[in-house]
Amino acid sequence: MTRDQARQLDASDPLAFARERFVLPDGVIYLDGNSLGALPKATSPQLFDVVERQWGEDLIASWTKHDWIDAPMRVAAKLAPIVGAKAGELLVGDSTSVSLFKLLAAAVRARPGRHTVLVQEGNFPTDTYVAEGLSEMLGLELRRAATEAIIDAIGPDTAVLSLSHVDYRSGARVDMIAVNEAARAAGALVVWDLCHSAGAVEVDLNGSGCELAVGCGYKYLNGGPGAPAFLYVAEALQGELQPPLQGWMGHAEPFAFEESYRPVGGIARFLTGTPSIIAMAALDSGLDTFGGVSMAAIESKSRALLALFIDEVEARCGGEVRLYGPRDLAKRGSHVCFAHSEGYAVMQALIARGVVGDFRAPDLMRFGFTPLYTSFDETWRAAEALAQILTAREWDQPQFKERRKVT
Amino acid sequence: MTRDQARQLDASDPLAFARERFVLPDGVIYLDGNSLGALPKATSPQLFDVVERQWGEDLIASWTKHDWIDAPMRVAAKLAPIVGAKAGELLVGDSTSVSLFKLLAAAVRARPGRHTVLVQEGNFPTDTYVAEGLSEMLGLELRRAATEAIIDAIGPDTAVLSLSHVDYRSGARVDMIAVNEAARAAGALVVWDLCHSAGAVEVDLNGSGCELAVGCGYKYLNGGPGAPAFLYVAEALQGELQPPLQGWMGHAEPFAFEESYRPVGGIARFLTGTPSIIAMAALDSGLDTFGGVSMAAIESKSRALLALFIDEVEARCGGEVRLYGPRDLAKRGSHVCFAHSEGYAVMQALIARGVVGDFRAPDLMRFGFTPLYTSFDETWRAAEALAQILTAREWDQPQFKERRKVT
Repeated sequence: MTRDQARQLDASDPLAFARERFVLPDGVIYLDGNSLGALPKATSPQLFDVVERQWGEDLIASWTKHDWIDAPMRVAAKLAPIVGAKAGELLVGDSTSVSLFKLLAAAVRARPGRHTVLVQEGNFPTDTYVAEGLSEMLGLELRRAATEAIIDAIGPDTAVLSLSHVDYRSGARVDMIAVNEAARAAGALVVWDLCHSAGAVEVDLNGSGCELAVGCGYKYLNGGPGAPAFLYVAEALQGELQPPLQGWMGHAEPFAFEESYRPVGGIARFLTGTPSIIAMAALDSGLDTFGGVSMAAIESKSRALLALFIDEVEARCGGEVRLYGPRDLAKRGSHVCFAHSEGYAVMQALIARGVVGDFRAPDLMRFGFTPLYTSFDETWRAAEALAQILTAREWDQPQFKERRKVT
Repeated sequence: MTRDQARQLDASDPLAFARERFVLPDGVIYLDGNSLGALPKATSPQLFDVVERQWGEDLIASWTKHDWIDAPMRVAAKLAPIVGAKAGELLVGDSTSVSLFKLLAAAVRARPGRHTVLVQEGNFPTDTYVAEGLSEMLGLELRRAATEAIIDAIGPDTAVLSLSHVDYRSGARVDMIAVNEAARAAGALVVWDLCHSAGAVEVDLNGSGCELAVGCGYKYLNGGPGAPAFLYVAEALQGELQPPLQGWMGHAEPFAFEESYRPVGGIARFLTGTPSIIAMAALDSGLDTFGGVSMAAIESKSRALLALFIDEVEARCGGEVRLYGPRDLAKRGSHVCFAHSEGYAVMQALIARGVVGDFRAPDLMRFGFTPLYTSFDETWRAAEALAQILTAREWDQPQFKERRKVT
């Protein structure tokens, strides 16, 4: 493909308008929205309003006047069409790790007599660490299985299965319906991690029979660094489940200051402490970048961007890099990894040229494509830059090999 | 006391300069900084920098370039002189409730064979709910004792004791040294809740023999609505304790993406997921309002403000209201409650006049005095307004009796 052809794809892109919703620095091709989404233009004005007008002028009265008290559900409601859930099945507030702990612990409690927590080998590490910590505390068995073997690993002793919808390295997308059906048949619960799929591809929590899920606010949802995570509990399970990590915000009457915990009905019982109103306001602006956008259009553009990038990289540097993960785009999320023995240094050389992806050990260069703001022209130029760097061995310089704390 | 005398106290107040660090709306006497601290002037500029320059321009590189990765410890270090701890004993990130869960669970794990979690009757409810949830999950006994009887309630089966340094209603301050000594003698751990004391009075965690503590970022620390809480673990205990709520940010090498959890040394092992960088930036500005201020000066002004208020209220309305909690100011935090059978309506009438306190069931009008920005003149005028409202029965109107969601 020529650069002109890539530009023609941009000219006919039905999502091209959405790029104007973001601040994107000059000279940068940002392919790391799967790690930290770009800044929406609406974020600073919204934060200024929440900070200066609401907090600064109305002070404590804002909990009622600006309905801060319902912010975890109000903000989460904007996520409902993005992940195929009902508004009353979602809330935001804690980190992904804490949210996952809450749901795993609630699931284990709802399956007394079962002693196994099943996790996915190679899942994003914090997911496994959370399951490990819970299992050690409760004397449960932590069992690991490869993604391909996860359905067969579900047994009569499995209380809950924790796995990612889209793998953070390979990009592989798991068939939700198949896993949910197998788990349900075995009487086990499933907690899905949507960190690498929510906002990037079509997700249909209700239609896929999902009962529990968590996901990240700071990747494709553009909520800012460390944005609050979301959690999802299907309506039918809300009365049955109760996380042991319970706090006043999930109480039936938080301001009655009762001596014993009495959970409120609905999704709000999954709240714990007071979440940051400022952080939720930033997430709110992030979710607004999806206004008027269909997830079918997101998925369609994601596949087209991935196809262009994979084709152009393989055409130019096929001998030097290896595609990691599935070739079938229907079985992928919206990022792609190429393996290269000097992947770390190559990525630093790309970043020096303004093409920003990231590196995942041991040898993966990772590129994320955000349909809301990544253009076909940028995708073409990123492939071209990679080819030039490899051809000229531009990566073979000391400053590109020195590891930073965060990679 | 006359108003002129109150103004003279302001003229000689060594902390008067600090008021200029805050946005305080005209026509409001804000006596609710114990619930939500006022907005520091530095907050908006700092958030703008973090959002527009760091996130917007430097994107993912900010984790290294602006050292976001160490923000939980860097921000917490500013708290060290405020609570009498070493910088490496503090971190910020999760809510108070989640932080408390982490420390209680770690404490229970460190005391195997002991089965009792001891809590304070009438403590702020979320503290008890957290202890309840943990106890139910682990099959432990939750035992409640009145504050006066808490030392006698510590027994050989007590794993951990959870209590507040300053009571959220009575304002009573617990003798930390006595409780810590009794707990240590009995082999139990103590988790202190500093929500109503940190930033308001002198707290000496190290000097008082405290081993574990949590506290709120959004009250006297001025970190904004729902600001991240802090947690404290004394240096000597950091190697011994491990919270089951473990995540990648507490791993020895978060970016090595290892399959099993391996906690880092020091306070950082008490981190879990990725905390909000924006929320931490606001807390950072909140902590900066203590720059150049000694906690001895804070405590001294707190007592002077309380003395003025209590004296003037009792002189004017002694027959109608009753002081709740200790009269000895050395045994108090920096807020005071007066009981009145129509306390809710009286508080609404005060708020309508621009004197903002809050109400705590069943009949308490609560007034918080923030030494950094509350003036003696405001304190005098608040007492005067209360007297006028009671004398004229100004509270006896329907709009003051209608309860709001958040009180």
